[in-house]
Amino acid sequence: MSSLKGYPKFPDVTKEKLERELLPEVFQWAISNGLTIYPPDFKISEAQVAPITLFPTPLPRKAFEDAIDVQKSFNSLYAKISQNHNGWLEEESEKLAKSDPEFTGKLWEIYKRAKEHGISQDLALGVFRSDYLINDNDNQIKQVEFNTVSVSFAGLSTKVGQLHQYLNDSGRYSADGESFFNEEIPVSPSAELLAEGLTKAIQHFKPAASDKKPIVAFIVQEGERNVFDQSVLAFNLLSKHGIQSCRLTMQEIHLKTTLDKSTKRLYLNSTGKEIGLVYFRSGYAPNDFVTQQDWENRFTLEISYAIKAPNLLTQLSGTKKIQQLLTNKNILTKFLPDANSADALLQTFVRIYPLDSSELGEMGKKLAFTNPENFVLKPQREGGGNNIYKEDIPTFLKSIDEKDWPAYILMELINPRPTEENIVIRGEQTFQVPILSELGVFGTILFDNKTVHSNDYAGWLLRSKFSASNKGGVAAGFGCVDSVVLY
Amino acid sequence: MSSLKGYPKFPDVTKEKLERELLPEVFQWAISNGLTIYPPDFKISEAQVAPITLFPTPLPRKAFEDAIDVQKSFNSLYAKISQNHNGWLEEESEKLAKSDPEFTGKLWEIYKRAKEHGISQDLALGVFRSDYLINDNDNQIKQVEFNTVSVSFAGLSTKVGQLHQYLNDSGRYSADGESFFNEEIPVSPSAELLAEGLTKAIQHFKPAASDKKPIVAFIVQEGERNVFDQSVLAFNLLSKHGIQSCRLTMQEIHLKTTLDKSTKRLYLNSTGKEIGLVYFRSGYAPNDFVTQQDWENRFTLEISYAIKAPNLLTQLSGTKKIQQLLTNKNILTKFLPDANSADALLQTFVRIYPLDSSELGEMGKKLAFTNPENFVLKPQREGGGNNIYKEDIPTFLKSIDEKDWPAYILMELINPRPTEENIVIRGEQTFQVPILSELGVFGTILFDNKTVHSNDYAGWLLRSKFSASNKGGVAAGFGCVDSVVLY
Repeated sequence: MSSLKGYPKFPDVTKEKLERELLPEVFQWAISNGLTIYPPDFKISEAQVAPITLFPTPLPRKAFEDAIDVQKSFNSLYAKISQNHNGWLEEESEKLAKSDPEFTGKLWEIYKRAKEHGISQDLALGVFRSDYLINDNDNQIKQVEFNTVSVSFAGLSTKVGQLHQYLNDSGRYSADGESFFNEEIPVSPSAELLAEGLTKAIQHFKPAASDKKPIVAFIVQEGERNVFDQSVLAFNLLSKHGIQSCRLTMQEIHLKTTLDKSTKRLYLNSTGKEIGLVYFRSGYAPNDFVTQQDWENRFTLEISYAIKAPNLLTQLSGTKKIQQLLTNKNILTKFLPDANSADALLQTFVRIYPLDSSELGEMGKKLAFTNPENFVLKPQREGGGNNIYKEDIPTFLKSIDEKDWPAYILMELINPRPTEENIVIRGEQTFQVPILSELGVFGTILFDNKTVHSNDYAGWLLRSKFSASNKGGVAAGFGCVDSVVLY
Repeated sequence: MSSLKGYPKFPDVTKEKLERELLPEVFQWAISNGLTIYPPDFKISEAQVAPITLFPTPLPRKAFEDAIDVQKSFNSLYAKISQNHNGWLEEESEKLAKSDPEFTGKLWEIYKRAKEHGISQDLALGVFRSDYLINDNDNQIKQVEFNTVSVSFAGLSTKVGQLHQYLNDSGRYSADGESFFNEEIPVSPSAELLAEGLTKAIQHFKPAASDKKPIVAFIVQEGERNVFDQSVLAFNLLSKHGIQSCRLTMQEIHLKTTLDKSTKRLYLNSTGKEIGLVYFRSGYAPNDFVTQQDWENRFTLEISYAIKAPNLLTQLSGTKKIQQLLTNKNILTKFLPDANSADALLQTFVRIYPLDSSELGEMGKKLAFTNPENFVLKPQREGGGNNIYKEDIPTFLKSIDEKDWPAYILMELINPRPTEENIVIRGEQTFQVPILSELGVFGTILFDNKTVHSNDYAGWLLRSKFSASNKGGVAAGFGCVDSVVLY
């Protein structure tokens, strides 16, 4: 690794120093500052340290800054798509609905019903995260996916950066008690900026009673373990912006809220407060909808006057299919006419093939069998953990009906450089094994059918996972929250 | 309770609202903000919510402000005593040593050895907490004890105030989602101000190498559960003042530090950094010294050039015996000549009797048997939990040799008003039972043999315990951290 220009040196840490000195310090900081998660089968009064790395992971400054620089263009792009410009998103969603009737199809149905019924609120808030891997050979950022619903770790990302900064500044990493890393260890402003994004939606919302402040409803999963990532946003909303919030599961909407039939305004039953923003940290995967009532609840939220983050069209804009289509410059520039911006985004794309009967689709089908080692097969659905890699692709495709192939996209594999010096901490176990790191950049954008009211970059996240594992998802236990040291 | 003028109303909280709405919110805030403690037999990567109250406890504003107002005078008083003005503290400590040879006696021996050897550092830091109960009949603050070593909860006190403010501002307490308490819920600045106190000592310390910053050594107990109260101070030292710190147990001093024999400067072996301030969060009870080596370690610290918080004389000034003697105005005014200040302190005192052969002692011995219901019997030692109350006093005194009676003082009981509306939260259990609350006020003072260099108020603490229990000590499991709502 040292052959890379400016690549940071890492401290030599003996097992004894790690266990006797560093871990107690890491855990004290983490617990004292809420860098925590509920363990499986938890009691609500007890928590554990979130899966994290001991050190920040080196990233080339140029790649880090490139990812931040393109975020507002990505926000614009997906807002424009979500505005259903030329009916394109509806058209594509309708097609997608057919290849994934169980989930995308149901979201689409709910959207159609809501549209028929009448959608009372024009404003929509996008809370996005664009995820990248950095290509080993040229240090270019390459987009893995663009997330338009329930993006997580904005809260814990800030905290893990603060932890690494603390460990460095307090001299814990070094042998002489001085800072070990002289390179910059930035702290992600995501915990604050995401709360600011939510705030802008509330500021644009017109409450029924002008003297009463609307609140934010966090729509969450029952039994959520990653609560402390979410609660940071709620606390910042109140302490920095005076905005109250509540937590509701998709299962509780009809029990704990009331939709005024004529005005479509949504009220929290317990206090009578109007909900100005519905912020989804659930509703992105089939498991989030248990019964038909849950789908009805999603419908209620969609037709309500509350601003949704995201509304259904915005959520639907985040499918892999849309991501695939946008790699076509002709399509991309319809939504992002500015040539410089479009070029910057295009540079972050790898090749993505559909597996349908289009010309590109036929090429994809062939490549899946002739060169599977260069690809990953991804389902349209959000959530991760369901990807099929390399040589497993042909076997998998043969195991399903070819008519279901369009529910997947074939994506060129990105080849990031594993980091070998970092140490992953999960519970009290530590692992010094190669990790791969994914950089996510947050953005928020408030828009209606015609206008963009605000468009902001909102911090970043580094998530690392064992390089041997092909799966992601920190909360699921396969990865951890990391931060960066720039070189 | 409503008959008291201005006494705050409390919300009606059903068991269902408590368990389904309030507790999850309380725990989320507490874990997200480090209002936590290690459970018994803990793993260092897991913690639980500290024992706390659901609501702030009402205190009369006048009493609260009175307690804050006298703190700097108390700081001055105990600094002057610790300066060994007229040899009084040495004289009294020598007497006390005889009645408590196992602990006070050993501290005294170490002090004498250190003095003979030569104490290289003139500067001493007092980190004090004066504890009060509020008398029911007249709302006057009455001093329970004055703590001169290892005062705790400066960190968690700030956090529990923030929690109660959050719960109020977020509308959780009320039925309508508005703030429930309109009265002030102050947040104790103790987490910040105590760190500032430690900082002043470091600023006055002259390091061996003028270009190298000295560090603070926290002397802690092995297996400490109240770590997160302490770590807040360490984090504030670094983030607000750029001062590093380390944690050492009394057992580790000879293994992890080196005393330069000629300069008496103390260095941390692992990094070579000079220790400028030794801050004791241990060393206040017999259990903190396991072997003779531990006493040697205390000796090493005392003769070192590092500033001690506290040094042995300052620690010895905190005995109940000294507290008892200071209730004598003639003695008090020798150390605090200013008549107004002395009067203000005197008003906070209850009657305290020695159990020795002095005139007052003979009176005490009589009262212990004729009117035990008005008294509490306290050992000289710090730490709490060993007090004997009311009718148990005669039985206890008869059970021990009369020559050991001078190791105790007999103190007039203070009659605080129980609070009946608050709810104590311990783990996931809740208790709505009457509680008694003790107000502690923190202070820091930096002084040498002649001069006081700084003297500061440093925030406050409210600790509540079940009124039925006669024991205190939150970490020991008999009490909880509370905050105040002023009326």
